[in-house]
Order: sequence, then C-alpha cells, then structure tokens
Amino acid sequence: MIPPRMEIVNRVSRMMAISAKAAAEGGKSGLVSTMGAIHPGHLSLIQTARQMTDLVVVSIFVNRLQFLTDDEYRQYPRDITKDVDILGQANVDYIFTPPEEEMYPSGFSTYVDVERFGSKLPGIYQRIYYRGMTTSVLKMLHIVRPAFLFFGQKDHLQGAILRKMMRDLNINTEVVVRPVVRDASGLAYAARNYFLTPAQMSAASVIYRSLQAAEAAIRRGELRAKKIIREITDVIASEPQATLEYAVIADPDNLEPLSKIQKSALVGVAVRIGETSLNDSLLIEDRE
Amino acid sequence: MIPPRMEIVNRVSRMMAISAKAAAEGGKSGLVSTMGAIHPGHLSLIQTARQMTDLVVVSIFVNRLQFLTDDEYRQYPRDITKDVDILGQANVDYIFTPPEEEMYPSGFSTYVDVERFGSKLPGIYQRIYYRGMTTSVLKMLHIVRPAFLFFGQKDHLQGAILRKMMRDLNINTEVVVRPVVRDASGLAYAARNYFLTPAQMSAASVIYRSLQAAEAAIRRGELRAKKIIREITDVIASEPQATLEYAVIADPDNLEPLSKIQKSALVGVAVRIGETSLNDSLLIEDRE
Repeated sequence: MIPPRMEIVNRVSRMMAISAKAAAEGGKSGLVSTMGAIHPGHLSLIQTARQMTDLVVVSIFVNRLQFLTDDEYRQYPRDITKDVDILGQANVDYIFTPPEEEMYPSGFSTYVDVERFGSKLPGIYQRIYYRGMTTSVLKMLHIVRPAFLFFGQKDHLQGAILRKMMRDLNINTEVVVRPVVRDASGLAYAARNYFLTPAQMSAASVIYRSLQAAEAAIRRGELRAKKIIREITDVIASEPQATLEYAVIADPDNLEPLSKIQKSALVGVAVRIGETSLNDSLLIEDRE
Repeated sequence: MIPPRMEIVNRVSRMMAISAKAAAEGGKSGLVSTMGAIHPGHLSLIQTARQMTDLVVVSIFVNRLQFLTDDEYRQYPRDITKDVDILGQANVDYIFTPPEEEMYPSGFSTYVDVERFGSKLPGIYQRIYYRGMTTSVLKMLHIVRPAFLFFGQKDHLQGAILRKMMRDLNINTEVVVRPVVRDASGLAYAARNYFLTPAQMSAASVIYRSLQAAEAAIRRGELRAKKIIREITDVIASEPQATLEYAVIADPDNLEPLSKIQKSALVGVAVRIGETSLNDSLLIEDRE
C-alpha cells in the first residue's frame, strides 16, 4: 500500500519543480540513488536519510551506460511494483523513476569523466563503466539537488569516484557512506544476488569470510598489503564455486594502492560466482 | 573606486557561501563568466543581468584549459586592477576571481565532454579546447548557482555547446545570449583585440563587412549556404592582412551545417589578422 504522501515521479521536469520548491522552502533533501531491486542495504540508507533530511528521494533508474553489454543491461532484475511496495513501507517522500528517454533523450552526448582515478588498481578501471555512473549521478544531483547523497560502502570504488567528482566539480552535496548490510551468512545484499542459485548463494558467503580473515590479520598487526591479500586469496580459493577477480588495498580517498597500511585503508574485493560478479569491501578506519 | 557593496571574492568556499545564502533568501543570481579584459561586450551583458536578476556576479578567470598552448595562455591580456575599476562603475555585486589552484587544485582530473557536437563543422572542432571551457563553466555554475548565465553572441560555438551541456546535464540555469557589441568600425569587442596594432585594428573591420555582405545576400533572397559563404570569402579576400579561418552556416541549436537556410541560422566566421584569431557571427532569426 502506498501512503498518500509518497509520490512516484516519472518526469524530470516534475522532479526539478519539486526540488526547486523544496530548496526555496529551505528544506534539506536526501537522495538514495538506486537501480531498483530494493534490498535491506537500500533500506538502511533510506533510514539514515530519514534521520538527516526533511525530504527523502529514492531514484530508481537502470542506467544503460553502466553496463558493459546489452545482455547484462537487459537481464538486470527489475520489479518496480515490488520496489514501490517496499518503499511505501519505508517512509520515502518521492520515488523518482524516469524512463530512459527522459534521462538520455535522442542526441544526448555529454559525459563526465574522472580521469586517472583508481587507474593504478590493476584490472579494475577498464572493467567498470564509470563514465556512465558519474554522468548519471551528476544528472540526478542536478535534478534532485540533495544536501546529502547516501551510498553503501559495498560499492567502494563507485563511492570514491563519486566523492572525487563532487570535489573536482564543486558540487554542494555531501556524500554519506554507510556500512555494508549483510544477511545472516555474511553475504552483502545486492541486486545481483537475485541471479544466484541457492547453492551459489551459500557459496558466496566466502566473500565476507575472506574480508574477515583480512580484518583478523590486520588486528594481529599485519599491515603489509601483500600478506593481507594473501589471506583473502587463500579463503576464496577454499570455495570451488568462487573465482577471485581482484583484491585490493588502497587509500580510501584517492584509490592509490597501498603497499602497507598506515592510517585508513579500503580493502576491496570482487568475486565471480558462476556468471555473477559480486563486490564487497571493508573500511579500515583511521588507526590513530 | 570600488563602491562599498561590490565584493571581490577569491575563494571558492566564500563564493559558495554567498550563493547558498542568496538561494536561501530566494534571490535570483546572474553570472557573467569572463576571462577578464572587461570590454563593452561584457558591460552589455552586465547591464542585462542587472535588469533580470537580484545579484550580479562577474567571474574573472583566465582558464588555462581553454588554451591550446602555454604561450597563448601566458600572453592573454590580464589587468585585474583596471577590470575592477571598470566593474566598480557597472553596478556589479561580486567579482569572483579565483586563483588557479582554487579552481584546479593538485590532482584535479574531472572533465565534461560534449561529444559529437559541432564535429561536422570542418576544421573547427579540433581547434578550440571545448572541454576546458565546459568544465570550467560547469564548476562556475555549481559555485555561483545562477538562475541566468549571460553570454555574447560573438562566441557562437561556445554558446551553442554550453546550451547543449546544460540541456544534457539538466542544469537549472537559463542561458541568455546577447547581440555582439561593436566599435564604430564594426569590429566586435574582444579581449584579443588588445593584440592588434592600429593598422590591424582597422583591417579587422573587414570581418563585420563580410557578415554584412552575407546578411544583404540573405535579404535579397539568397538562401544557399555555398553562395552566402562565397560572399563572405570575397569580402575577406579584399583585405590583404586578413586570412579566413572558417566561415560556416549552421543550425544554431545543434551546430549541424546547413546547405540551405530554412528557418534560423548561425553565420559564423573566424579570421586571422596577423597572429590573432578573431570570431564574429550573425544570427539569422526565425524567418516565419
């Protein structure tokens, strides 16, 4: 059931009118940008947004520019009815779900690139279509004008790149990063989990176990990246259905790879289970 | 003399605080974005801004990214004292003149590209460093948050590309384009005029005469681009100190070259006088 106060907005012009009115009234908005398939990770972001802002906007837009192949784009899970239902319970003010032709009308050709960022993390930079992500989020920021953008720690690289874009372009929105939300087995909630069979789902819990092993090593005083990554590799190797795509230890602010942890660090992994690539990460907070 | 109400702002953070306060109070700001060397063309934009908005911001920033060579960048005319003096008479509220390290701090690497736009205008697209222009203006729009951005018709290509960027990225600022302001000889006021010797200055009046010839031809009913461009070429050829760099007739909205004028059209020229390249243009309004 949709509470009377929640509105589903399809048109960019309508959303911009709402944002302009909210800004004129001095209200602070929060944006939770999603590709739908709403899960507990999103709900945790929405809850934080509810506490910090006057107006909570959840965008649902499966952004074609973020997919490497048309197949991946087509197969991405979409269930707007179910999403609206869940969001209706979550005290959201607006669901902004523009059709593709509203976001990328015919002739669209303007893109935002964050260059040289994360490019020293081998094998990562090429694989994720960052430009599509930054361009889409920049448009969302212009349309919704949020004081805060809420982001999950799971998508560690995306979050770091977005913060960099916002710094470089003087965007007056603060990024709030929230911890990863996990199911009982430790698997991080993610839209892509829908592709997993029950057996794969169970195998995927190895991802969090590998991060826990890394964390334990760091607590024991191991600060050398190579050794910590070795811990991760060993745990992942113990699960026959899992293939490690990458494991990195990097400065969370600029994504430069670290050979030794000195203050804070981002431990990020991507693991393939069957045909599905899953991310997870651990933020080692400032050790001072 | 600087009137008490005009403030010179050097820091991005200070300018953003002023913009936030103005927005919260519901005031409409206007931005005139310049590289300094304030001339009557700028003053005409400021006058329009004064009439249309509550708060007039003039930015002065010689944007390194817009120059093809370091030499051109270094030689660009700069006289901030004189500019401040002129703007003090012009009823401006804020001069925003950030140092380079405020706009492009160490590690800056985010750029906005308007792709495929104007690329069919032969020889133009390569020559002007559009990416530097769009990136700098996007930053200015985030910092100043103007309701209106004022732009001179002289820089026809830049204006069309900026409008396209703002449409594609859903930027809630309206571009106001004002006619070219000319001296008695018909030469459009421009910072680069400072490089001309008196003899070159006099020769440069051929540029406007070539546009007048084009306009006269169109009034006579000549709508074929080739023929109109021929008129321009002939007039420019009559001045030995002038070399035509390009003459184009294009759709003002999408910069697609036109073979025949049907409704509105942009007649744009670039002419080299000595070492200095000068732009001018004519907008043929909708002929319905």
